[in-house]
Amino acid sequence: MPVRNVVNVGLIGFGTVGSGVHHLLERNGSIIGQRTDLDIRIKTICDLDTARVKAKAPGAAVVSEWKKIVADPEIDTVVELIGGIDPAKSIILESLSAGKNVVTANKKLLAEQGQEIFALANDGRAALGFEAAVGGGIPCIAALKSGLVGNRVMSVMGILNGTTNYILTRMQEESLSFEDALSDAQARGFAEADPTFDIEGYDAGHKIAILSMIAFNKKIDYKAISIEGITKIGSFDILYAREMGYRIKLLGIGKRAGDRLDIRVHPTMLPVRHPLASVQNEFNAVMFTGDMTGPVSLNGRGAGSNPTASAVISDIVQIAGKAGCPGGAIRFRGDASYIQPGERLSRYYMRVHTEDSPGILAKIAGVLSGYDISIASVIQKESDMPHVPLVIMTHAAHEEGLFKAVREINAFDFVEGDATVIRVEDYVSDGADDE
Amino acid sequence: MPVRNVVNVGLIGFGTVGSGVHHLLERNGSIIGQRTDLDIRIKTICDLDTARVKAKAPGAAVVSEWKKIVADPEIDTVVELIGGIDPAKSIILESLSAGKNVVTANKKLLAEQGQEIFALANDGRAALGFEAAVGGGIPCIAALKSGLVGNRVMSVMGILNGTTNYILTRMQEESLSFEDALSDAQARGFAEADPTFDIEGYDAGHKIAILSMIAFNKKIDYKAISIEGITKIGSFDILYAREMGYRIKLLGIGKRAGDRLDIRVHPTMLPVRHPLASVQNEFNAVMFTGDMTGPVSLNGRGAGSNPTASAVISDIVQIAGKAGCPGGAIRFRGDASYIQPGERLSRYYMRVHTEDSPGILAKIAGVLSGYDISIASVIQKESDMPHVPLVIMTHAAHEEGLFKAVREINAFDFVEGDATVIRVEDYVSDGADDE
Repeated sequence: MPVRNVVNVGLIGFGTVGSGVHHLLERNGSIIGQRTDLDIRIKTICDLDTARVKAKAPGAAVVSEWKKIVADPEIDTVVELIGGIDPAKSIILESLSAGKNVVTANKKLLAEQGQEIFALANDGRAALGFEAAVGGGIPCIAALKSGLVGNRVMSVMGILNGTTNYILTRMQEESLSFEDALSDAQARGFAEADPTFDIEGYDAGHKIAILSMIAFNKKIDYKAISIEGITKIGSFDILYAREMGYRIKLLGIGKRAGDRLDIRVHPTMLPVRHPLASVQNEFNAVMFTGDMTGPVSLNGRGAGSNPTASAVISDIVQIAGKAGCPGGAIRFRGDASYIQPGERLSRYYMRVHTEDSPGILAKIAGVLSGYDISIASVIQKESDMPHVPLVIMTHAAHEEGLFKAVREINAFDFVEGDATVIRVEDYVSDGADDE
Repeated sequence: MPVRNVVNVGLIGFGTVGSGVHHLLERNGSIIGQRTDLDIRIKTICDLDTARVKAKAPGAAVVSEWKKIVADPEIDTVVELIGGIDPAKSIILESLSAGKNVVTANKKLLAEQGQEIFALANDGRAALGFEAAVGGGIPCIAALKSGLVGNRVMSVMGILNGTTNYILTRMQEESLSFEDALSDAQARGFAEADPTFDIEGYDAGHKIAILSMIAFNKKIDYKAISIEGITKIGSFDILYAREMGYRIKLLGIGKRAGDRLDIRVHPTMLPVRHPLASVQNEFNAVMFTGDMTGPVSLNGRGAGSNPTASAVISDIVQIAGKAGCPGGAIRFRGDASYIQPGERLSRYYMRVHTEDSPGILAKIAGVLSGYDISIASVIQKESDMPHVPLVIMTHAAHEEGLFKAVREINAFDFVEGDATVIRVEDYVSDGADDE
């Protein structure tokens, strides 16, 4: 084993995201170590409620005074997750001044009063990471700042607030009124008891301010952004939008307008083929248009404990890598072993051309059931051709049995040619986490 | 002005991507310098056809022998863009051994014979960047490797080949046969004269091999990947898929299957709500599912001179940043200035509730035309309510005139309440490049 570089983290704020960071390191710390040679340790956790920290993170040192973290010479990275202006601003400024790297999810602070912080980070004594401030688990800050670094960025835009996107999705899919969709969002934890900050567009405003700063390398005055929320959108509008081939989304938009900028947040009609039009529920998405890349869009969970913790960890690793971790290519833990194709479990689409005579579907279904393959749906249409297409969608089955069945089906006299088989890939938006 | 860190690049291969890198630096080199303090200079270009290099890059030093670039002590970064196994492999191995950083777009080499290269890059003497090998202008390697570094990755999948996605899109949208769609793709330059490598899925195979290596940190044997192309897909299948609510896409898929992996390329039925189902034409997209983030997807141009050059430059900047460029936050060039909201040009959706009597549409249309706003479409339905909704979609107009018109319309006696106005954001997939 190579010697690990230790990163000593001081974590300030142990709410949703802070406890997520702790959970992530408990769960995936060893994977991160294998990938990066970094041993990321939470040395001290600061929270006013020390009892809740001790309950969730029994091994960690706990303090209630953030100054103890900034004063600790062993802590090299301060993670600020308390949000708001005060004392978050003091924490970040004092940490950077002390030469400590800072990782924060604080969009309000960076959007409204970020200039002093950015200036301090730019002097190079310590680094500032804020991937978690926009788009939760979507690595959109890095994509814009590093991925598109060679581009003149023409525009940035995005669905930057999960609460409003959830509400608009419910209005669209279930024809709910705004009020009913908001109540539903509150019941499911996607909206706060006082939802003003989200539904009036202020949260999206903070995020488009930050994206615009990166895209255009200009200081942005948050107060110069036109912000309009979704409270005036009626069910009528959702219906008419659909009828005309559009969807209504709350977008943050930053665009070049000659030498000036046009930055705003408002409900927007998007043609259904727009990459942002199909972003549903609490998901976020951004679209950056570079002069070299054309449109690049990213989509994922824009909030929540685990996705946002993932962004925090990504920043810690990036910053630590700069400070000495060699930039290796890919670290391998041995050779892969593979499952045999026959072991795969999938649903299948099958198209087979058969004579148009009675009993054929029964024979084919019999072959399938002999291999424990059950049929989900069938399409067979009337036709005056000698051979008619029979289309079957199966339930999940192993490939081995499926292909044996197909060989038997192909051998029937009444089948013309060979069956076409296409595997089905379903979409589970919940991800694969089973914590 | 701060002192710039000079990066001396040796560019090997001046085809589509190589000339794109030269073009990008000519065009955006000063933006990159402002953002990063890096002065990226192409010191020497190597190509067998020295005449075409001199025609396009009149100022550069040109050689036809790659060994001259590897032997040049002033060159710190070698960009390999000739593709294929030989001599690309020798170029990369000799460059890394000489302590030179390497940036490459060579997916075939990395997928089939990458182990020796990755091992050499991992010893830390020099860095290897290969963002351009997968997904063109989409920063998907960085998103997976850095953005999701804190995740146990459950699966990676993607539409990794633009040629086949273009063909499947034409089959889907215009009911073309495979053969006709292929001819169309060839005529438009999206398919090679010999399209075997793309349509049989080998190119997608190389890319899913590379993504799987990063996701699972396992050495992948390219020959162990099951690969099936799109040549057996008929128009029938496209139609039945649509009827059942699916789209057919050629996917590269890498998944965990217990302790083993399941890696494959084949045509796949995707439910229309799957994030990859709506990726059209020559666009590429990937979806990574991390245990912390859930699904994260990225979408953009997967090939072409400018997008791929953007990825090469991103790698050069990342690698140079590691070697000393301070990790600043955002570099600002002054304060932004803003256009006034009224100056914005947009199409608008307007809903207004009016009495149901003759001449009302004419009066409203008259107000709009007085502000040079022309109507694209109108929806007004029969109703037995006293006030009926009138929905108007306008052509592009300035916001100032639109809002003046709306104030006049709201003042009509026959109008109930205030009109609802929603701006339209169109989608131009060609991006904003006007080179």
